[in-house]
Amino acid sequence: MPERKGLVIVHTGNGKGKTTAALGMAFRALGHGFKILMVQFIKGSWKYGELETAKKFENFELRPMGLGFVSTDGKVSEKDRRAAHEALSFAQARLGNYDMVILDEVIYAIGFGLINENEVLSLIDEKPERLHLVLTGRNAPEKIIARADLVTEMCEIKHPYQKGIKAQKGIEF
Amino acid sequence: MPERKGLVIVHTGNGKGKTTAALGMAFRALGHGFKILMVQFIKGSWKYGELETAKKFENFELRPMGLGFVSTDGKVSEKDRRAAHEALSFAQARLGNYDMVILDEVIYAIGFGLINENEVLSLIDEKPERLHLVLTGRNAPEKIIARADLVTEMCEIKHPYQKGIKAQKGIEF
Repeated sequence: MPERKGLVIVHTGNGKGKTTAALGMAFRALGHGFKILMVQFIKGSWKYGELETAKKFENFELRPMGLGFVSTDGKVSEKDRRAAHEALSFAQARLGNYDMVILDEVIYAIGFGLINENEVLSLIDEKPERLHLVLTGRNAPEKIIARADLVTEMCEIKHPYQKGIKAQKGIEF
Repeated sequence: MPERKGLVIVHTGNGKGKTTAALGMAFRALGHGFKILMVQFIKGSWKYGELETAKKFENFELRPMGLGFVSTDGKVSEKDRRAAHEALSFAQARLGNYDMVILDEVIYAIGFGLINENEVLSLIDEKPERLHLVLTGRNAPEKIIARADLVTEMCEIKHPYQKGIKAQKGIEF
C-alpha cells in the first residue's frame, strides 16, 4: 500500500492567489521535506520575490518553461504551442521523482489552445499514487474539475488597480 | 513621500487557501528581504509544515496566540476573548516594525465575537503608509471589505473529504 494518497488539486477563478496559494502549499510541504517541482507554463506568472526565496530550498525546483504568451487577437503561435508541450512533457517524464508537482498556469494554457485538455488528463492518469499534483489557471474545464480531489475558486472581489494604485513590490512582483 | 503604498489585503470565503495564499505572499515578500509578522488568532490554522519552513527565515516571525476556539454552541469564553485581544494588541503595537503583517483568521475571530469589527478597523487606520496588512478569515464584514485594497474570495468547489479521502501530510498539515 502506498504511504499516502496524493491529491489532485486545482486553483482556478479570476482572482489573485492561484499561483500564490500554490507557493503557500510548497512552503508547507517543504517543511515536511517534500521534493517539489514547479513548472511555469505562462511567462510572467512568477515574480522576482519567489524566485529569490526558492533559492534557499534544495528540494524546490522551479522551471520557467513558458513563453511570453499574451492573447490579444486570439492567435496562438506554433512556438508558444511547442513551448507548452515541452513543459508538459518535461513534467510528465519526471512525475516519479517528486512528492509534489505544480503545473502553474497549465489551465490557462489549455484555455488558449496551447495544449489540449486531454493531454493534461493523460498526465493526471499517469500520476503516481503518492504524488500531489497541483494545477492552476482560470476557467478550469469540467473534466479536469471532475478528476480533481480539491478545487478552490479564487474570485476577485476588489483589486487595487480599480482604485488606481500601482503594482507594489513584494505583492505583485 | 513614502517609498511604497502598503496595501490592505483580505482573503475571505469558505474555501481552502486563505492562510495558504497568505503564506505564499510571505514566500514572495521574503525574497525582497521584507520583515514579516504573522499572528495566529485561531489555534490550528497553522500546520507543522509551515512552522518548520518558517524557521529558515530570520525575517519571518510567527506568533501563535489563538486558543483552540471552536464554536459548537455559539458560546465564547472570556479566556478566548482575552487571547484574541492580546493578539490584536500585540500586532497593533508592532505595526511599525515590519514590512508586512498578516493577521491570520482575525476575520473569523470577529465573526465569533472574540473581537469587535471596529477594533480591527482602528488597527487598519493606524497602519503605517508603507505596511502591507493581510487579514484572513471567512465572512469578511462589509466595512472591512470597504477599507481593503485587494479582496479575494476563496470558494470551495470540491473538497477531498466529500470523497472520503483523509487529511494528507504536506497538504492539510
